[in-house]
Amino acid sequence: MQKTVAKTLPGFMELLPGEQILFNQMREKIQKTYERFGFLPIDTPVIESTDVLLAKAGGETEKQLYTFTKGDSNLTLRFDLTVPLAKYVAIHSNELSFPFRRYQIGKVYRGEKAQRGRFREFYQCDIDVIGDGELNIINDAEIPSIMYTTIKELGLDNFTIRINNRKILNGIFEEIDAKESSVDIMRVIDKIDKIGEDNVKLELKNLQISDENIGKIIEFIRINGTTDEKLNALDCLNISNQIYKEGVQELKEVIKYIRAFNVPEDYFTVDVSIARGLDYYTGTVYETFLNDHKEIGSICSGGRYNNLSEYYTDKKLPGVGMSIGLTRLFFILNEINLIKSNQKSISKVLIISMIPDLKPAIETANTLRNAGINTEIYFDDKKIKAKFKYADKLKIPYTIVIGEDEVKTGELTIKNMETGEQERCVVGAVVEKLKNNE
Amino acid sequence: MQKTVAKTLPGFMELLPGEQILFNQMREKIQKTYERFGFLPIDTPVIESTDVLLAKAGGETEKQLYTFTKGDSNLTLRFDLTVPLAKYVAIHSNELSFPFRRYQIGKVYRGEKAQRGRFREFYQCDIDVIGDGELNIINDAEIPSIMYTTIKELGLDNFTIRINNRKILNGIFEEIDAKESSVDIMRVIDKIDKIGEDNVKLELKNLQISDENIGKIIEFIRINGTTDEKLNALDCLNISNQIYKEGVQELKEVIKYIRAFNVPEDYFTVDVSIARGLDYYTGTVYETFLNDHKEIGSICSGGRYNNLSEYYTDKKLPGVGMSIGLTRLFFILNEINLIKSNQKSISKVLIISMIPDLKPAIETANTLRNAGINTEIYFDDKKIKAKFKYADKLKIPYTIVIGEDEVKTGELTIKNMETGEQERCVVGAVVEKLKNNE
Repeated sequence: MQKTVAKTLPGFMELLPGEQILFNQMREKIQKTYERFGFLPIDTPVIESTDVLLAKAGGETEKQLYTFTKGDSNLTLRFDLTVPLAKYVAIHSNELSFPFRRYQIGKVYRGEKAQRGRFREFYQCDIDVIGDGELNIINDAEIPSIMYTTIKELGLDNFTIRINNRKILNGIFEEIDAKESSVDIMRVIDKIDKIGEDNVKLELKNLQISDENIGKIIEFIRINGTTDEKLNALDCLNISNQIYKEGVQELKEVIKYIRAFNVPEDYFTVDVSIARGLDYYTGTVYETFLNDHKEIGSICSGGRYNNLSEYYTDKKLPGVGMSIGLTRLFFILNEINLIKSNQKSISKVLIISMIPDLKPAIETANTLRNAGINTEIYFDDKKIKAKFKYADKLKIPYTIVIGEDEVKTGELTIKNMETGEQERCVVGAVVEKLKNNE
Repeated sequence: MQKTVAKTLPGFMELLPGEQILFNQMREKIQKTYERFGFLPIDTPVIESTDVLLAKAGGETEKQLYTFTKGDSNLTLRFDLTVPLAKYVAIHSNELSFPFRRYQIGKVYRGEKAQRGRFREFYQCDIDVIGDGELNIINDAEIPSIMYTTIKELGLDNFTIRINNRKILNGIFEEIDAKESSVDIMRVIDKIDKIGEDNVKLELKNLQISDENIGKIIEFIRINGTTDEKLNALDCLNISNQIYKEGVQELKEVIKYIRAFNVPEDYFTVDVSIARGLDYYTGTVYETFLNDHKEIGSICSGGRYNNLSEYYTDKKLPGVGMSIGLTRLFFILNEINLIKSNQKSISKVLIISMIPDLKPAIETANTLRNAGINTEIYFDDKKIKAKFKYADKLKIPYTIVIGEDEVKTGELTIKNMETGEQERCVVGAVVEKLKNNE
């Protein structure tokens, strides 16, 4: 028969089972943490009507879309979980309770240029709180506490959540009369870590900003010190603009409550240079960096927006949220050896029969499984060595051997595959041993 | 601003949070059960190269594909999880341990005619065991025990797993010299429950089967009685064909071991009329029906196949597996009220502050969350009645009220929202109460 070449598309992650176990454990930790903060699950379709998904036409994103027709319908694969949320809330607003706290973990699609570490299909893990008309600023402080808890749960340490408020930036641009170019200026400021202060000045000059105003901007983004020193410096800057003052006030509130949420001082900071590329956020913004691996960019970002569903409804629905791009995060942590897959098996124990009649092995498996222990039986008629090799290769923690002697005495031989220790005991004792050893 | 109409595509399930919680609970129960039997997770892409997915061109399925181009690539959304598994095993066979036991739970896509209860995007929950060269028949008996355990875990009872072996049918067709029309004959037999014996006879006559041979077929599919009586009748039929005998022998082995796996006699039966529409299965086949709702069709099906990856590799990889179509199952069980969503909230407790300073509320939440209790704080500055209404609407089981008095005494007021019971205690006692009450 003519064979087809089996291949997986470039830019699509497909893991071996051992790595998949690790990936799933990370995904479950994120989910459990989101649930601990009382967020509700939703699961929207991967395919949406193109006009719904592109209600807000999206610059860069639009080129990357997976768009196609089926019958008369123009369809697109979702490129994030925020637009589907906006649609969902617009459709169901009468059936939801506000503030609506939801999480969604699912795959999204962007036809980026394929390159190592960039994925066309990837998991986003999002939470958002949506208010009906208004939303208390304390929500903006709870989000970083969820970021902190989640990243800690993933086993990471030595990271910093950088926090800013877009109103501070917007106010400054109003103050220096550069409101029309604010998006451009923010894009430039956003790059300061990458391109340095001199290049920022140069690019600002290219934007027709006067030297005096460039000076003000630089004075502003040079603000430094402890969190409280920065907040103080923001207060003392000679800027009278009202939006600016509002932004500083909000930022102070957020910092006050982040502390109430017990996020340690070492794990967050005010960073006035953070703008988030998108022109979507309107208040608080967050980015999170691994201090020893800043080169990989923000691993967890988000912010406050005025009006989630404005392209679908007149209802005012302000929100604040965050997102973790799990596929890329997993890939990078794996690359830099910050996570490791030790577990290659789901089974806690492999039952190996030395006798042709497999009924005693099956009965033992029934008992263990009924007790909630992940159990596998080796069925194939292979040499005993091959059976143990299977357990070894899959790193199954325990084996139980059943031979004639075991059937006669009703005792099983259980072996710890790591230490090589063996003991004989009745099935009840085996259950206890394996349950206590989770 | 011009608004876009927010809508979800027909044939795509999108649930409110309460139903989503129930759906996710079912999905997790399935996953946990699959893991209890030692199956490994994999997660293949939703998008595959069209030539890979259509290596085996697929009749009906092909019309339903979501196919499109992106750049030079011809892409298709997966329509099941079996073809991606075949691809996966062909690619990774050198890195996997055989027998390879894998589960996959994910969305698949079929552009069916939209109608109530039919979905274009739906979850399949699959397990398969793949052997390298050969695979012990006992695996064919373990699968129904997983079916039984899983369906029980979903809270369903009164169901029957119907079991047959394709070799029995194939042998009979060889015996009556109607091998070329065997697929057609099986399709006719498969419909006996729907169209009745007379119509089966008529359709067989249309296939040019002689009256004598139609008699043999009917005698065969009339086989009835207990499981052992049926097995006995199969033995006694005057058929000397070797494949037939092999099939009967395999079926007997499977039944013997299903009993060893403790599947109660009431929950499985031999059904010689079951062929499974596909010409894909080569040995044991299964279908599962809810006895009181046979009209909804099989809720869990599967079978044995000779050669999983034959379109990609020369390696012989026999397998046996099963699949649950969760989206449709959820929809139907919901319709006929066999499942009910009682839980509308992920939070175990809502903390309500009677004082403007939310710090005591936040501190309490920190303690509860650190203890693993799903906790939410009501932040919005609303009247106390509105705060309780929110807890009511979301059916959050407990509320904790914090007022001046509570701050002074260090005791919290915790209220059981269902019974209305209230008590005052310190936060440690609250943690104990909520932890014991899972």
